[in-house]
Amino acid sequence: MSGCPYFEKKHLLFKNKPPKTDEDEDASQAGVNKASKGGIIYGDYLQLDKVISAQVLQSELKGNKIHDEHLFIVTHQAYELWFKQILFELDSVREIFISGHVRDERNMLKVNTRIHRIVMIFRLLVDQFAVLETMTALDFFDFREYLSPASGFQSLQFRLLENKIGVPDNLRVPYNKRHYRDNFKGHDSEMLLATEQEATLLKLVEEWLERTPGLEVDGFNFWEELKINIFDGLNQEKEKIEKMPDSEEKQELMDELLKQRELFTSLFDEKRHDHLISKGERRLSYKALQGALMIYFYREEPRFQVPFQLLTSLMDIDTLMTKWRYNHVCMVHRMIGSKAGTGGSSGYQYLRSTVSDRYKVFVDLFNLATFLVPRNWVPKLNPNVHTFLYTAECCDSSYCSSEDSD
Amino acid sequence: MSGCPYFEKKHLLFKNKPPKTDEDEDASQAGVNKASKGGIIYGDYLQLDKVISAQVLQSELKGNKIHDEHLFIVTHQAYELWFKQILFELDSVREIFISGHVRDERNMLKVNTRIHRIVMIFRLLVDQFAVLETMTALDFFDFREYLSPASGFQSLQFRLLENKIGVPDNLRVPYNKRHYRDNFKGHDSEMLLATEQEATLLKLVEEWLERTPGLEVDGFNFWEELKINIFDGLNQEKEKIEKMPDSEEKQELMDELLKQRELFTSLFDEKRHDHLISKGERRLSYKALQGALMIYFYREEPRFQVPFQLLTSLMDIDTLMTKWRYNHVCMVHRMIGSKAGTGGSSGYQYLRSTVSDRYKVFVDLFNLATFLVPRNWVPKLNPNVHTFLYTAECCDSSYCSSEDSD
Amino acid sequence: MSGCPYFEKKHLLFKNKPPKTDEDEDASQAGVNKASKGGIIYGDYLQLDKVISAQVLQSELKGNKIHDEHLFIVTHQAYELWFKQILFELDSVREIFISGHVRDERNMLKVNTRIHRIVMIFRLLVDQFAVLETMTALDFFDFREYLSPASGFQSLQFRLLENKIGVPDNLRVPYNKRHYRDNFKGHDSEMLLATEQEATLLKLVEEWLERTPGLEVDGFNFWEELKINIFDGLNQEKEKIEKMPDSEEKQELMDELLKQRELFTSLFDEKRHDHLISKGERRLSYKALQGALMIYFYREEPRFQVPFQLLTSLMDIDTLMTKWRYNHVCMVHRMIGSKAGTGGSSGYQYLRSTVSDRYKVFVDLFNLATFLVPRNWVPKLNPNVHTFLYTAECCDSSYCSSEDSD
Amino acid sequence: MSGCPYFEKKHLLFKNKPPKTDEDEDASQAGVNKASKGGIIYGDYLQLDKVISAQVLQSELKGNKIHDEHLFIVTHQAYELWFKQILFELDSVREIFISGHVRDERNMLKVNTRIHRIVMIFRLLVDQFAVLETMTALDFFDFREYLSPASGFQSLQFRLLENKIGVPDNLRVPYNKRHYRDNFKGHDSEMLLATEQEATLLKLVEEWLERTPGLEVDGFNFWEELKINIFDGLNQEKEKIEKMPDSEEKQELMDELLKQRELFTSLFDEKRHDHLISKGERRLSYKALQGALMIYFYREEPRFQVPFQLLTSLMDIDTLMTKWRYNHVCMVHRMIGSKAGTGGSSGYQYLRSTVSDRYKVFVDLFNLATFLVPRNWVPKLNPNVHTFLYTAECCDSSYCSSEDSD
Repeated sequence: MSGCPYFEKKHLLFKNKPPKTDEDEDASQAGVNKASKGGIIYGDYLQLDKVISAQVLQSELKGNKIHDEHLFIVTHQAYELWFKQILFELDSVREIFISGHVRDERNMLKVNTRIHRIVMIFRLLVDQFAVLETMTALDFFDFREYLSPASGFQSLQFRLLENKIGVPDNLRVPYNKRHYRDNFKGHDSEMLLATEQEATLLKLVEEWLERTPGLEVDGFNFWEELKINIFDGLNQEKEKIEKMPDSEEKQELMDELLKQRELFTSLFDEKRHDHLISKGERRLSYKALQGALMIYFYREEPRFQVPFQLLTSLMDIDTLMTKWRYNHVCMVHRMIGSKAGTGGSSGYQYLRSTVSDRYKVFVDLFNLATFLVPRNWVPKLNPNVHTFLYTAECCDSSYCSSEDSD
Repeated sequence: MSGCPYFEKKHLLFKNKPPKTDEDEDASQAGVNKASKGGIIYGDYLQLDKVISAQVLQSELKGNKIHDEHLFIVTHQAYELWFKQILFELDSVREIFISGHVRDERNMLKVNTRIHRIVMIFRLLVDQFAVLETMTALDFFDFREYLSPASGFQSLQFRLLENKIGVPDNLRVPYNKRHYRDNFKGHDSEMLLATEQEATLLKLVEEWLERTPGLEVDGFNFWEELKINIFDGLNQEKEKIEKMPDSEEKQELMDELLKQRELFTSLFDEKRHDHLISKGERRLSYKALQGALMIYFYREEPRFQVPFQLLTSLMDIDTLMTKWRYNHVCMVHRMIGSKAGTGGSSGYQYLRSTVSDRYKVFVDLFNLATFLVPRNWVPKLNPNVHTFLYTAECCDSSYCSSEDSD
Repeated sequence: MSGCPYFEKKHLLFKNKPPKTDEDEDASQAGVNKASKGGIIYGDYLQLDKVISAQVLQSELKGNKIHDEHLFIVTHQAYELWFKQILFELDSVREIFISGHVRDERNMLKVNTRIHRIVMIFRLLVDQFAVLETMTALDFFDFREYLSPASGFQSLQFRLLENKIGVPDNLRVPYNKRHYRDNFKGHDSEMLLATEQEATLLKLVEEWLERTPGLEVDGFNFWEELKINIFDGLNQEKEKIEKMPDSEEKQELMDELLKQRELFTSLFDEKRHDHLISKGERRLSYKALQGALMIYFYREEPRFQVPFQLLTSLMDIDTLMTKWRYNHVCMVHRMIGSKAGTGGSSGYQYLRSTVSDRYKVFVDLFNLATFLVPRNWVPKLNPNVHTFLYTAECCDSSYCSSEDSD
Repeated sequence: MSGCPYFEKKHLLFKNKPPKTDEDEDASQAGVNKASKGGIIYGDYLQLDKVISAQVLQSELKGNKIHDEHLFIVTHQAYELWFKQILFELDSVREIFISGHVRDERNMLKVNTRIHRIVMIFRLLVDQFAVLETMTALDFFDFREYLSPASGFQSLQFRLLENKIGVPDNLRVPYNKRHYRDNFKGHDSEMLLATEQEATLLKLVEEWLERTPGLEVDGFNFWEELKINIFDGLNQEKEKIEKMPDSEEKQELMDELLKQRELFTSLFDEKRHDHLISKGERRLSYKALQGALMIYFYREEPRFQVPFQLLTSLMDIDTLMTKWRYNHVCMVHRMIGSKAGTGGSSGYQYLRSTVSDRYKVFVDLFNLATFLVPRNWVPKLNPNVHTFLYTAECCDSSYCSSEDSD
């Protein structure tokens, strides 16, 4: 970036970590005023020869250069650059989970920070539409024909992203009756298939939630305690209502109570949960759901503060992806119309249908809001549980965690 | 972008503009479902092989891969991508001015739209720091040494941008006592020198402002009329004050009046103007300043509505560039500290010094706010001037303006 | 705002517009250093005694103060403040149209600026959810019961806003089977009814579009000329396709051509248009649609540059209102869940259903993108029409338009 | 907000926390469809009668209504509303620190969340200028005179905010040679004086940092261990350099090494630290600085993850306040000019001078970036320290912390 003094000579001193090759030694001798002497310079470091030479206008190739195609290309490239960054963060987080490093609680800072970074990137991407929207439908029309048959459906990185987070194949909205993977061939198609089979972020978070301390049946047994408290609470409510004189209001409260009882009965009904999973309306396992609710209720416990932030960030990602989809729909509406009443643009309708809770991977975390109860119904922690000792696993390499260095 | 239905077959029909080669015909036969058959596909169109393969971590090359370097690279690449887009828009606008196409008022829509697009891009770039700020000073420290001697001072595009807008060599803050161009060699250095010698956006806008209709001495003669009205107005004020009984307030108002008279005397003093130009405190010619003030006062005239928007957007660019600089300073403070009281980081101090009105190219447009007067002091247009006939130059090619097609 | 030097004494001089009362004279004598002497001070000017004393927590009144309720109140008050500003701008724009001042083209700057200001406010309001989202579902649960039965459905200003822009009664999604106006009583209900009967922004824009110069049958006759060109163009396409050797591709192109012909036939079919209006799928009159398309195609004409910007801003408002609705839905999902599979929250489902093209007032402006044609199919302006003389109506009061001063 | 279904009857059931009065019972009987029956409704809850009736245009009172004054008022009211919210969060956080509740680590979630909320509000406030910037200097000029002598310098809440965070009296830039408190009288002035004497956020954070576990001289003794490691490291560097053959590079590295040694010598020199404090260049006590650096270096320890986030958020607040000041300066430049070369606007120059590190309360947290060292120089934690047992203080009231309920 312009004028950023990355380099202050001081840092040349701190070279005692990894062994350097001769070439490196050479590089390290150059200061900001000696680009000529050697070392890497800004443009080479960023490979700008590749990045900013990659804007080729199809309209120009076809002999009819249209100014706005340049914006169209650059915007999409910027999206893809950021998608690459998101994939990079996502893979690193998945790796921390897969490798089991997540069991060392020190790694939760990394997980949390990187997931939060994805949130911040998506926030930027949602805003980025404002730039492309400076192009009008008429400008777009002028070069649209030259793009055929290129289509955003062919963005490999976006599909990888969806798969790695956990959008399942069977919940995808089909487009033109084709499987999404049919837009890709060869290596790309194989990569997509692979991500469908790998552990998704959803799956990894699920496993982690299932291990939430306090769920053990022979320990604190959160779930059973909660169940008891809730039904006790509802019974007390019922008694209070029964004591009221007959009235329309009494009837309403009683009706409401019965609905609530039904609702909570469903919460503790594992079969019902599995049924909802089979319909795609729930995504987390029964045990993981318990872990999530436990983190919600005890979020102020030191042990759960960072996990609670993580759950919040996961919802942020879902929300932002869905806002991104919606902003995309709005832009497409402006660019090509919806053709309402005239036969219809299948593209617009397709995109609109993806702005759906079906595409919210962590939908259960949102829907837990349905099962909140008054704070005094939440089982009290006993002092033992309360302290939630940190038993960070033994870690020979003292400070640094290994994940980054290999 | 994911799922954007660029292509709707309809457009294949509209192929009657430029002649197509055989290859194109081939391309045009493919539909979204037939990427295999031919035609360009998304990834090739965007040259993603280049763009998303350009992230090489120096820390990894040196055997000590640091996760956050990836973010550092991608963020800077995104900045450079957008700088390229800004340069593209800027060049096209400058070309419209240079070629004289701006005299055809139909081209004002293009000029205005593209300058506004630059504004929107800068707005995004200012926000984009929020993503890089998810990296802490400690993360940065881990790979900072590997970047040496690469530095944002070496961003060619940013320097080109400054030059083309109109940051003059002599107002630049020197860094480490070196000329900014010494950070570049060969072709890059020549490009920079060339842009110093070409017509800047400032210069071109200046020439355009000098042609503002209504300035002609033998016509409406805005400047002389304004001068008369202002000094008449001030005299009337003076008389009113003189009639007041003696008081502290009377004295204050009289003092203020004298200051105002001085201020406006300076406005109509061409020598003083030229003196301020020589000191770098004003940048527009005396006549251009008159044109700008005329557009301000008569902005509601149909003839001046779009020019007024343009002047506003030019200030937006200045403001956003300076906000960008300031956000950059804030980030650098966080990443490397200011070393206040310990000897100092010259980089931080340098950047801080560039957040200055010296770098505001259109500073005169801001400072005109000093010379506003009550609406009834503004000379009245006579009906002839009022209509401001559009006499768009004769234009054989009917609808399309030629600028885009060559 | 902190430290803004609104006041510089100079301005005390410019008091010669309206006559002042004694009290005013007094006020004008005070400088920034003499707040004690008289004149209005910041807090009184902004009536902060009212504005920042209006945060009463229901939870506190009920003896169980919940911290986050304060945020909830302030956020909603900020929304309502901005709604008031939007209504203020909207009413002023409607007044310019209703009074006929819009026929003086000088007023287009005002119309355009104020509509653009509404856009900028909505952009802020969309972002403002990020603040409220720092409250979690659990925090909300703690005070939610105390709010009963207050509900955002009761926001008078938002309903006024919808009505004044042009959301029609019959396209509203009913909530709990009730008419939206039943949530209001007395004066509020009457105000709503009145806005349903007044001229909406949509209606006023429609009338203005119907007067677009160039539509006259005995003049340029844009519509007839366009129709001829389009069908000529399609016929030429057809001939070209017919000459191709038989192939799958030929068949596809021919099918596509027929669809296009059907599409454009529908465009020129006034009865079909009126049918779509009756179904709520189109909102503008047939003639207004023609005007809008004309502005699209000739947007570079000086006469049409600002009108084109206005149409773009109207789409911006629609888009941002719909994004606001969608962000609202996302927040509600997080706060109370969707209860998918458990009986359902009618509130969430209702809100979701309002994120619909039914609520896009200017939907026709989006859908015109369906009817774009190659630039060389657009009828050429003859030189007479080309100049589009400005015949600003005679205006005795010289510079100022009267709209603000009464 | 429009259509937000705050109320779902379920919640009427959960009334068993605080005892209700008769009136409350009444309230709880109303549903969303029964606003007429009783209970609080939206407009009353938000006291909209006060909030949206508080827009009185001075220009209108003076008989010359200027449209844009409405925007000016609403924008400032929105700023003040949000300032109130920031003060509310700030006071609650200060209370947690003052009361000692912060020693119960469970309260760190609250502290962190509320400080983060302040960050999010400031982010909105920085963006909010974009709305006011839709007003031009010319529009402002039309009503500017009527505001006299009201001035943002008189914003009580902003000054309270600065004081409570920790902007000290002696580092303030004087305006017109007057003490900032002289702009206020009576109760307001007393409130300001009181906040100067109360514990600031800076002071409270300082005390908390001084208690960072691991600083104890008879325990882990972080500071002494760090000192040893650093000077060992520097000595090893020196030996390596001395072995190099003589060269320009060797000399440079040696010079750099000496500078580094000096830098770190200064870090461990308590007297120098106190000297810098007396000059206003450092703000935290020597021990608090140690605590902060310790949290930086061991941020991945479970014990320090949330404290590290807190330090980051405190820097965010500083950064955003300074960006807010800068955006304010930019707007003022546009509205009233800087009068460069014409005598000058003291207001503009004053505001510009407040965009300074003098106003960064947590400047030390930024400047710690100067003292970072390679990870292998950081003292290794021994297993005992490593686990950092949570010893949340005994807390009879089980789950809820008391802070909210009184």
